[in-house]
Amino acid sequence: MGGDSGPPVTVPAALAALKKHPLLQITLVGDEQQITPLLTSLSPNDATRVDIVHTSVAISAHARPDKVLRGSRDSSMFIAVDRVRQGLADACVSAGNTGALLMAGRHLLDAIPGIDKPAIMATLPATRSGGYSYLLDVGANVSNNAAELYQFALMGSVLASSLSERPHARVALLNIGAEANKGTPEIQQAASLLADSPELNYIGFIEGNQLYDGVADVIVCDGFTGNITIKTSAGAVKVIQGLLTKTIRAGWYFRLLSLFARPLLLGIQKELNPARYNGATLVGLSGIIVKSHGHASQDGFEHAIRHAIKQVEDDVPALIAGKMNHASE
Amino acid sequence: MGGDSGPPVTVPAALAALKKHPLLQITLVGDEQQITPLLTSLSPNDATRVDIVHTSVAISAHARPDKVLRGSRDSSMFIAVDRVRQGLADACVSAGNTGALLMAGRHLLDAIPGIDKPAIMATLPATRSGGYSYLLDVGANVSNNAAELYQFALMGSVLASSLSERPHARVALLNIGAEANKGTPEIQQAASLLADSPELNYIGFIEGNQLYDGVADVIVCDGFTGNITIKTSAGAVKVIQGLLTKTIRAGWYFRLLSLFARPLLLGIQKELNPARYNGATLVGLSGIIVKSHGHASQDGFEHAIRHAIKQVEDDVPALIAGKMNHASE
Repeated sequence: MGGDSGPPVTVPAALAALKKHPLLQITLVGDEQQITPLLTSLSPNDATRVDIVHTSVAISAHARPDKVLRGSRDSSMFIAVDRVRQGLADACVSAGNTGALLMAGRHLLDAIPGIDKPAIMATLPATRSGGYSYLLDVGANVSNNAAELYQFALMGSVLASSLSERPHARVALLNIGAEANKGTPEIQQAASLLADSPELNYIGFIEGNQLYDGVADVIVCDGFTGNITIKTSAGAVKVIQGLLTKTIRAGWYFRLLSLFARPLLLGIQKELNPARYNGATLVGLSGIIVKSHGHASQDGFEHAIRHAIKQVEDDVPALIAGKMNHASE
Repeated sequence: MGGDSGPPVTVPAALAALKKHPLLQITLVGDEQQITPLLTSLSPNDATRVDIVHTSVAISAHARPDKVLRGSRDSSMFIAVDRVRQGLADACVSAGNTGALLMAGRHLLDAIPGIDKPAIMATLPATRSGGYSYLLDVGANVSNNAAELYQFALMGSVLASSLSERPHARVALLNIGAEANKGTPEIQQAASLLADSPELNYIGFIEGNQLYDGVADVIVCDGFTGNITIKTSAGAVKVIQGLLTKTIRAGWYFRLLSLFARPLLLGIQKELNPARYNGATLVGLSGIIVKSHGHASQDGFEHAIRHAIKQVEDDVPALIAGKMNHASE
């Protein structure tokens, strides 16, 4: 039910994912009056892999997370997360209210032993390689100590290796300089922990302007910094897209030109296509929860489902638990 | 002597500023063998407004700030800042090593009474209005408490009003959400201080994606967050510029098109022109120090000089001292 459009985006995305993944089964949790009409295109065969759990309660995108717990037990989001808790689902994918999803995850699922706080890991474009980097935490926490940053590094490393199919993920700490003496005491302590860990391929500090260079697979920071970082990036991209539009509208030459330039602009938009980067993971809980952006397209939501499938295939929570076990020995 | 190019950029910029500001006098501090040949275009009249203080010592862009104090007393940067201390100059403008400039400022100049820590204030494009917003601190500090954030707000408000010639600058705190309960304890305490201050036009929290919307004239955050924020923005802009170039080179159609699209790209580059946003101020000291970006163009460096002139005309340090006096009554 979540996201700007709700079922008209999430349901077709789910059906598209079913076609591509023959072993996938999907439970759609929400208002069956809205969902059922969207299932008419299902083949009888595929229909056996979809079921609906009906509820008419949905958490609003604008609900305050601190008000969410009361009266939300019957909401589609809580029911979906609770199916993960009960083992009725391997993962939950939602485009709904991030704060509420975090609340539901923390409330219903146990933390992985050894993990103090869950984090949200976002996908970033790594422009030089054409691949991805991963940034965590982008907002599950307000501040984090060195031990938590170290746990984020371990979790991010496991998750990035699963999602990118690249072993020995390169892990960096986001800092205000590359020199060893830079940053807060928390970051300096975290740097020692990361450098000393045989579990990690730690490459040192990176600065904000290197975030999109693909120099690291996993970039670790506290939740406050990460949240402002991804939102600032979105703001900067919006500025340039606005300038492109404004410039094109500025005169007849550009309006004419824009007809010919359309493929150029489409090419850029394709590269920047947010659908490719959609799918943030709530990591650190004993269950898989993937958060889609609220205004993700059908392709974007399908991408988030794919993130969940990869994590199920690799059993990422068990891999993280194993690492934590190993790290504490 | 500072910046990627040194005197070939900074000296012509100084001469251009002299032409536009009839009352301006400029002291060029550095290697006279490099400076003198760049002064041949000076009219005899303008030549009376320029003098050179020679030194052959210059602090490298890569010098570590913690190593700078030793043996830097004779450097062009320290001499330039010291002339402000002695009252021989009203302001110092440098494109050199930021950490060293901060060190020189802190070492040679007194703090304004009531200001615990100086801050660096950067200029941001405010895209909707076509004007500017100002962000501080962008890296003079690693962490800041509520009282310091409040002082940043007061200083930023005075400085923004001077630079933008706009009274009652709108002041916001950068946070991870707009609701009153969001953010760190420091930010929540700072929000109370700002809201209670009759000296400030406080408008509340803004998030990272609103940084360039022009909704606030002054945006306040700790030095760690601010530093990562501006560097991340630069990284995101670089990504898109790279995509534009890559797309244009991708095929004959785009190469042909790019001939016609050149004005479009130039228009965008003009809007994004970093020269327009060049000039960060080291604020909180009893003297005016403006930092130009190391790879600023001549136009950019001239813009930084203009920032210094405006602050001299308004006597910004005295205005800040007056506000602090008032605020503590």
